[in-house]
Amino acid sequence: VSPPPDPVRLALVGFGSVGRRFAELLGGPYGRVLRARGLRPRVTGIATARHGLAVDPEGLPLARALSLARAGRTLDPLHRGPRLRTIADFIRRVPADVLFEITPLDPRTGQPAIRHAQMALRRGLHVVTANKGPVAFARRSLRALARRQGVGFLHEGAVMDGTPIFNLAERCLPGARVLGFRGLLNSTTTRILSRMEQGRSAEEALREAQAAGVTEADPRHDLEGWDAAVKGCVLANALMGADVRPPQVRRKGISGITGAQAQAALRSGHRLRLIVRAVRAPRGVLVSVGPEKVPVGDFLVSAGSDGALVLATDLMGEIGIWEGAGGVDQTAYALLSDLVAVLEGA
Amino acid sequence: VSPPPDPVRLALVGFGSVGRRFAELLGGPYGRVLRARGLRPRVTGIATARHGLAVDPEGLPLARALSLARAGRTLDPLHRGPRLRTIADFIRRVPADVLFEITPLDPRTGQPAIRHAQMALRRGLHVVTANKGPVAFARRSLRALARRQGVGFLHEGAVMDGTPIFNLAERCLPGARVLGFRGLLNSTTTRILSRMEQGRSAEEALREAQAAGVTEADPRHDLEGWDAAVKGCVLANALMGADVRPPQVRRKGISGITGAQAQAALRSGHRLRLIVRAVRAPRGVLVSVGPEKVPVGDFLVSAGSDGALVLATDLMGEIGIWEGAGGVDQTAYALLSDLVAVLEGA
Repeated sequence: VSPPPDPVRLALVGFGSVGRRFAELLGGPYGRVLRARGLRPRVTGIATARHGLAVDPEGLPLARALSLARAGRTLDPLHRGPRLRTIADFIRRVPADVLFEITPLDPRTGQPAIRHAQMALRRGLHVVTANKGPVAFARRSLRALARRQGVGFLHEGAVMDGTPIFNLAERCLPGARVLGFRGLLNSTTTRILSRMEQGRSAEEALREAQAAGVTEADPRHDLEGWDAAVKGCVLANALMGADVRPPQVRRKGISGITGAQAQAALRSGHRLRLIVRAVRAPRGVLVSVGPEKVPVGDFLVSAGSDGALVLATDLMGEIGIWEGAGGVDQTAYALLSDLVAVLEGA
Repeated sequence: VSPPPDPVRLALVGFGSVGRRFAELLGGPYGRVLRARGLRPRVTGIATARHGLAVDPEGLPLARALSLARAGRTLDPLHRGPRLRTIADFIRRVPADVLFEITPLDPRTGQPAIRHAQMALRRGLHVVTANKGPVAFARRSLRALARRQGVGFLHEGAVMDGTPIFNLAERCLPGARVLGFRGLLNSTTTRILSRMEQGRSAEEALREAQAAGVTEADPRHDLEGWDAAVKGCVLANALMGADVRPPQVRRKGISGITGAQAQAALRSGHRLRLIVRAVRAPRGVLVSVGPEKVPVGDFLVSAGSDGALVLATDLMGEIGIWEGAGGVDQTAYALLSDLVAVLEGA
């Protein structure tokens, strides 16, 4: 492990809620955490799809970048140096040691995040992402590329925000093999189904979730299990060495479920929930997504959680990991945690 | 980090169920895990309080040691070299790189495990323990001693068997501060209280647990919350930087609880359980143990678990860790996991 660069130059591709929160916290607690470890962070570039981009080798003024972004204005005025026309140009040119890939996900292709990660890794930058796409569609090749380049490719934020899952399995379970897993990983369907238990119809529950702003623009992404399928692939690829893609997932959504069914399940001591499972099979890892009747009192449906996962291992039996309320702070923390790991060579 | 010794010489102090299981698995999967990492284990010594001790610099015959131990016979015939009279002699002389402290615990003092760990660390051996005593009573001084000697002192098995708690907090939550925790950590009281919910009296439930062999010789150790208090100190000392001892824990056991109370709690949607809590207070970390009415559906009382812990952190919110059925295999795994960590300098 070579000593980390000083300063550590950070480039952000994507500057939505997670990127902005990360930048804010870098000016406060995250900056303190890094400095306490001898790391001096400097954000040298931020690129967005629709609000311009800016590079400054001496470090961007984060407070100004944040106020421009919050006002919906372009970052272009902060740019110094030769003009860069595209995000691809930005990734090729930004003077950086670590690139954060935090663009919005296209769950059907994993793009453009995969291309971004490839370009940055080819340049020899560490890549940290909170994006499921590159992990669900291309983890194996991206990790191999990172290894050849002697850099890190980490993605703790891809599932359950910053709750340690991938780093836990990689660093705290030496020699143990993950035989399978089951998880409750899509909070939108959990929310909708729990409202249906309380007497709402499926349509009312969906409208409420949309009004609260917790669904994707296209609600089928959640309801038909695509989000859960993508997460299942991320976990299977990272924890079980699989190379499975979302279209290969046996997937059933919750669209056909009625309020009456959710209530009947509850009366019989169960909660209907969208569960992701993976098992090892002769021809590889099988990932499935579908509604299940989970006994009330089961770990996966315990109260107050935004996600829960049980790993079945050979040497250590079952280990459960549970996230309390998850949000943008938790996803931003995943970026910090991975940043420390790639710099310290963990 | 210097390269690990080859072979890695292991000494076991204590050869009860955990030590024997570790030795068995070293001949199988654990050996494979270690060799895959370039580590060649050799058990050079085993010492017990009542069944003799044996040292062989060339490696003890583990199958023979196991059959002697299972038959309740002394290990002395396996010994080669000058006679060693005591465990202290053994710790001073055994040719080893790593010492496993896995003797029975005296929950009131933490001895003799603390002395064993001190002697081994002073000699410059790594120390791995599954023993709560040294961590509850002397973690700070033992870690300082280990640091001065340039070796590791790890204790993943002290709470929740091999479920990663300490290694998780140390390696996967960089910069996050643990503000407090709550846990269900004593499986004997959980078992007794759940039988009381089903209609047993407190006395019947205790007798059943004793008949099943899951209580300590002195059942007050569990019932009066001593075991939970010791675990609370282990967690507070290791995760919150505290230096608190079991007598300082605000402790209330379950002895006063009747079957009727457990059943009334359940009718109101709660489970009475012995809960361990810690919070930061102006004068340090406060640890408490006592029965609480926990809502059915809460993470801590979810089904099928031998232990559950929620960490409240500043930067990452709440993280829960849950162990499925825990037993000797899980505790043995803690030894393997810590062994890898001390050798690889994690």
